[in-house]
Amino acid sequence: MNTYNDDDSLALHTDLYQINMAESYWEDSIHQRKAVFEVYFRKLPFGNGFGIFAGLERIIQYLEQFSFSQTDITYLRDELGYKDDFLDYLSQLRFTGNVYSVKEGEMVFGNEPIIRVEAPLAEAQLIETALLNIVNYQTLIATKAARIKHVAGDDTVMEFGTRRAHELDAAIWGTRAAFIGGFNATSNVRAGKLFGIPVSGTHAHAFVQAYKDEYIAFHKYARRHKECVFLVDTYDTLKSGVPNAIKVAKELGDQIEFKGIRLDSGDLAYLSKEARKMLDKAGFHSTKIIASNDLDESTIINLKSQGAKIDIWGIGTKLITAFDQPALGAVYKLASIEDENGQMVDTIKISGNPEKVSTPGLKKVYRIINTLNHKSEGDYITLQHEQPENEEKLKMFHPIHTFVSKFVTNFEAKELHHKIFDNGKLVYEAPSLKEMQNYTIENLELLWDEYKRALHPEEYPVDLSQACWENKMKNIEEVKQKVSEMITKN
Amino acid sequence: MNTYNDDDSLALHTDLYQINMAESYWEDSIHQRKAVFEVYFRKLPFGNGFGIFAGLERIIQYLEQFSFSQTDITYLRDELGYKDDFLDYLSQLRFTGNVYSVKEGEMVFGNEPIIRVEAPLAEAQLIETALLNIVNYQTLIATKAARIKHVAGDDTVMEFGTRRAHELDAAIWGTRAAFIGGFNATSNVRAGKLFGIPVSGTHAHAFVQAYKDEYIAFHKYARRHKECVFLVDTYDTLKSGVPNAIKVAKELGDQIEFKGIRLDSGDLAYLSKEARKMLDKAGFHSTKIIASNDLDESTIINLKSQGAKIDIWGIGTKLITAFDQPALGAVYKLASIEDENGQMVDTIKISGNPEKVSTPGLKKVYRIINTLNHKSEGDYITLQHEQPENEEKLKMFHPIHTFVSKFVTNFEAKELHHKIFDNGKLVYEAPSLKEMQNYTIENLELLWDEYKRALHPEEYPVDLSQACWENKMKNIEEVKQKVSEMITKN
Repeated sequence: MNTYNDDDSLALHTDLYQINMAESYWEDSIHQRKAVFEVYFRKLPFGNGFGIFAGLERIIQYLEQFSFSQTDITYLRDELGYKDDFLDYLSQLRFTGNVYSVKEGEMVFGNEPIIRVEAPLAEAQLIETALLNIVNYQTLIATKAARIKHVAGDDTVMEFGTRRAHELDAAIWGTRAAFIGGFNATSNVRAGKLFGIPVSGTHAHAFVQAYKDEYIAFHKYARRHKECVFLVDTYDTLKSGVPNAIKVAKELGDQIEFKGIRLDSGDLAYLSKEARKMLDKAGFHSTKIIASNDLDESTIINLKSQGAKIDIWGIGTKLITAFDQPALGAVYKLASIEDENGQMVDTIKISGNPEKVSTPGLKKVYRIINTLNHKSEGDYITLQHEQPENEEKLKMFHPIHTFVSKFVTNFEAKELHHKIFDNGKLVYEAPSLKEMQNYTIENLELLWDEYKRALHPEEYPVDLSQACWENKMKNIEEVKQKVSEMITKN
Repeated sequence: MNTYNDDDSLALHTDLYQINMAESYWEDSIHQRKAVFEVYFRKLPFGNGFGIFAGLERIIQYLEQFSFSQTDITYLRDELGYKDDFLDYLSQLRFTGNVYSVKEGEMVFGNEPIIRVEAPLAEAQLIETALLNIVNYQTLIATKAARIKHVAGDDTVMEFGTRRAHELDAAIWGTRAAFIGGFNATSNVRAGKLFGIPVSGTHAHAFVQAYKDEYIAFHKYARRHKECVFLVDTYDTLKSGVPNAIKVAKELGDQIEFKGIRLDSGDLAYLSKEARKMLDKAGFHSTKIIASNDLDESTIINLKSQGAKIDIWGIGTKLITAFDQPALGAVYKLASIEDENGQMVDTIKISGNPEKVSTPGLKKVYRIINTLNHKSEGDYITLQHEQPENEEKLKMFHPIHTFVSKFVTNFEAKELHHKIFDNGKLVYEAPSLKEMQNYTIENLELLWDEYKRALHPEEYPVDLSQACWENKMKNIEEVKQKVSEMITKN
């Protein structure tokens, strides 16, 4: 580590090409042109039927502090060869744009803008990488957490994954995202301090090993900790761990609250049922059984179907790494840009993969909620000038299989974007983390169960308005025309 | 975010149970007893035949700065209810132990201690979570990177994954680990600044979109950047992108260096072969073809087998998230502890899963290198007092299938652990990052190819010495004895 570390800033937390592009824009004097970029992902992770957005707080921190440090500039000049004229511009740069975003805890789906950045072209370009870095991970984890919480039902679910997280930031921001997605507590004390998340934990195998005797170890633990959860699988769960826990709890009586035992290995279905019988027989009916050991939504469903007597689930690796799909593919695409006359013109990215073609234009996203049953009919993407909230009847159609369509009446059109930054100034007051979690719960009540099941959920409609769809087709045609002219010329 | 954030420290970056255990040790006045913990993983990730260790630099930073901040103490008291007597102890705490570790870039294998911590029991316990958080991720990525580099051969491989990394730390420490594992460059500018890794990148689709014309965009890029790599798939790779790139390069002649084109979508085998022909036909024989788009070792092998004309590989998501196995399961187990008489006694963790039983005792790890062919015969774990470097002939046997054995003569026994901290003082001078990368390369030359192939490699021997194995069996017997006494008592 060299001296650059003293003056680390996140403005350099970007891909080199962003700086190269900013330089070319600046040299061409188009760096101040207003550009509109949208953050969206194409496909929901884990085969889930919904996503839960998280990451906004971190993005707010990042944008508020966005500024190249002295050593950033030195590095760019001395090591990467950028010239002083451009570096003078960079050294003064702050984020001055508008940001619109859905709230943390909002349900999100494929191909709908989650965040919209309207900013001078160079600024909007420079912040892309960090925004995606943050949104992709935190939204992935909030979604995984909501998925796990959904199968756990009313059981308590706790985040235990720090040791397997991808470095330190992931551990704390991941557990925050998990809380937004519905988790009840974390083992990470720093996350508890920074975010006010309830913290949970008792003792590890090493504690029993340190005393080389389970009975003594449990007694020692109970001397200082009145609320006792004993880890019972250091030597032998049913022959040694549970009997020792019961023995110590009986001996100490009212001096402790025997809150639970924790199983961390072996056949959790069998062990939990046997342990439950032993606890009940000893009169500890309200003592809970906590299980951990590579659990996720699929093992929870399986354990429940086997009648496992588990009250509390500790989820580590599979949550914090999003093990079965450790990346969300959110992208950041230019939707519109100011031309030399100050007019906004739409832009499109074409691809050999039809589903990768972007949707041009400045857009809004609405959730269409049926006012009779309070369930969502789908999301509806419009161009900026449209006002679906004033329509009596809405035609919703699939953006690819356009013949799949329905008319909706008796609806509320709820706009999902909120203004976060106005010309670089933070104008959004975030709710508390607990309110975000509650918002997730409220949101999920809008969904029919068929969209929420863990395996093969129904596909939730995310539709384009007629005007938005026609605009996309027009832009595609224009590009095709341009490419065919190119072929003729060459 | 509340005011606690101003005074964030990593001492709280731990699981709550570590603090609870430390409290019980402290209350019982055994917190200063010397404890020996070992970090090891059981199974290599990705089905790979070897691992590459990374993470030591971050661990050094963490241990040197280990200290509870004022607000950490306030939080523990006000929010979690810890009492002042114990908090007084915590507020003074610094790391005072010894740490032994293999070097970054060292080849590592399952069930061998990578790091050994010898420290007062409470300290050793408190640092567990952060150590595993760091080692698990960085070693995972260094290993994945070495695996990818192995199939890429002499081709250049670049890390492009920041936007899909698990939050910000993973992006920069992951790319550092990738460099140790053999990667040549990164797109992350901050990682370039902090670690001196070469940084690479040109422009994105948005740049072409901003000009709404590929030809103009390439010209604009070339005005400021003399070394040009053009991204050619914004509209149509072969019909528009490559012809425009060639046209611009021809027009600008010596004014630019036409370094390459980049393919980021579509059929990379076909497109690269066609693009190569077009470039060659236009006389740009030394212009390189760079490919990206969800690549990993398996797509590289496949593309090469199809004769793809790709010179440089940009690897994003699949590397930085270790997509096919996003967690390494390194654990931290108590191997030995001081008793009330000041004697070190071995400890063991038994498990229902036989492969999870820990190996007790203070141990050393040797690499047994055949001095005739300079290939490694395997790794050899001994108890502290053993000196295999002085042996003429070594018996190496499989620690589970003990009949699988061999005698080795003409060997060098290279001890893998280096002393990093001596009574809390850093005594290790780290090599440069480039030296670590070179060390990885040297290390891999010790392995027969059969251990290095991507699919179904041979299993590299990690053996216990006779004394170490016998000690393990003795400890297992003692625990079994204890458990059976427990059953009799209950």
